[in-house]
Amino acid sequence: MAIWRWRDQVWQEYASANVLDRGLQFGDGLFETLRFGADGYCPLAQHHRQRLSNGLQRLQFSDPAIEMTLSAFEQMISTAPANSGAKFIVTRGEAPRGYVIAADVSPNITLVRFEVANVDSTPESNSVHHITAGTNPIRLARQPLLAGIKHLNRLEQVLARQQFQDDWNESVLLDTESNVIEGCMSNVFLYLNDKWLTPYLDQAGIAGVVRDWLLESGLVEEAVIHQSSLVQCEAMIFCNTLSGPRSVQCFDGRSLAIRDEIQDWQEAFNRLYR
Amino acid sequence: MAIWRWRDQVWQEYASANVLDRGLQFGDGLFETLRFGADGYCPLAQHHRQRLSNGLQRLQFSDPAIEMTLSAFEQMISTAPANSGAKFIVTRGEAPRGYVIAADVSPNITLVRFEVANVDSTPESNSVHHITAGTNPIRLARQPLLAGIKHLNRLEQVLARQQFQDDWNESVLLDTESNVIEGCMSNVFLYLNDKWLTPYLDQAGIAGVVRDWLLESGLVEEAVIHQSSLVQCEAMIFCNTLSGPRSVQCFDGRSLAIRDEIQDWQEAFNRLYR
Repeated sequence: MAIWRWRDQVWQEYASANVLDRGLQFGDGLFETLRFGADGYCPLAQHHRQRLSNGLQRLQFSDPAIEMTLSAFEQMISTAPANSGAKFIVTRGEAPRGYVIAADVSPNITLVRFEVANVDSTPESNSVHHITAGTNPIRLARQPLLAGIKHLNRLEQVLARQQFQDDWNESVLLDTESNVIEGCMSNVFLYLNDKWLTPYLDQAGIAGVVRDWLLESGLVEEAVIHQSSLVQCEAMIFCNTLSGPRSVQCFDGRSLAIRDEIQDWQEAFNRLYR
Repeated sequence: MAIWRWRDQVWQEYASANVLDRGLQFGDGLFETLRFGADGYCPLAQHHRQRLSNGLQRLQFSDPAIEMTLSAFEQMISTAPANSGAKFIVTRGEAPRGYVIAADVSPNITLVRFEVANVDSTPESNSVHHITAGTNPIRLARQPLLAGIKHLNRLEQVLARQQFQDDWNESVLLDTESNVIEGCMSNVFLYLNDKWLTPYLDQAGIAGVVRDWLLESGLVEEAVIHQSSLVQCEAMIFCNTLSGPRSVQCFDGRSLAIRDEIQDWQEAFNRLYR
């Protein structure tokens, strides 16, 4: 693992954070978790870029702050080691107490790089993608102003992760009105009435890049999904950028189908990183 | 301003934060903003201590983490300069990516001390406590799991503060179901049908220490308060620990009464700090 800070338009070796960083004081910022392939290329970069840019605008970062952040993002993308992952964090910057955003505040942009295991698509390795999950007791609040973007206010996920049962690899989070929203660390997809569906994320949740990729492919559709669908669905998958599509073979104690197309999706996903 | 970090059971000069602090990554922590009087005493310490302790339990901090945090809190309380303020921040500690809380994580506890103007209760200074406010367009999400405590997920307040009109000193935040909840930086109280009422904070909002002090005194009562009360109330005040009770003389363009008892409350509040 290596840590860098964006300063004077280059990535410099880690300069430590300040406790007056509004990221620490208020969670006032965004992050992206990215994966780079064997050639150091990030195949889903455009989806990350769009979500980051959207998030910066939704949080009303200034134009110079957005420009600076996107410059740092581009340089991170273009200089990644092969088979690596990255966590990119941008905060509003440093300020004394108080929610007011000073006109001269400048973002703090941090990059953590880490290794990711090389893609291996042998049948044996795919079988580890068959996971166990259940319904998480933590409910997500409905806040359309923050839904979809990958902001730094993640206490709900912290609480939800602590509720995992011992044999769970993931869990489904509902919102306070009993709609299915997402997994704790990934997006969720349900096979219902001969279609793959994934929840709308206009009230809660993070719109993941693999979810975008599947939506663009036309393989899945967005829908309002009620909790009751969790006992009716024939199959279920979770996706995120580090592990790709993973089939659920047991959900809340019920056996689910492992549909053939998921192996195709896993292989297509793995090919992106070769 | 001076910054300290709790290490080896004493407050040491500021050691900088780590970007792997879960406070920065997820807002996984709590804070308290305190005020100390002319004798260095914090009259509302017990209310701060209770809220902090409650927050640590609600966020499921470990018993050793709670003990360590409360030790740091007590030492902060007992060594404060006269007429000072303090921001006390506790985060879960440092960890690589991922929401899982490692068994060996240890909290990061930071203290920022700053000066507070001495109390002055001349009529002239009280008149500056007559403020202008309005209804904020940002709505708070309803999340009972996080309501009441002073956690570090404060993006809603950051967004709300940016919506202030030029002449506003404060603003009222509603929740997504149009209930009155609080101010952006303080709690709110409405005089309605010959009573002072303040919203229940079981779905959203931060339960402030001055609010506790007024509730304990029996001068105000908790109630469900709908948005419609904002056009019906005869008077309104905001309270927080740094400024005490402040009367609103104009709300959304409507003139409100400045009730006589508020000057008594301000004087009682100021006496705490002399």
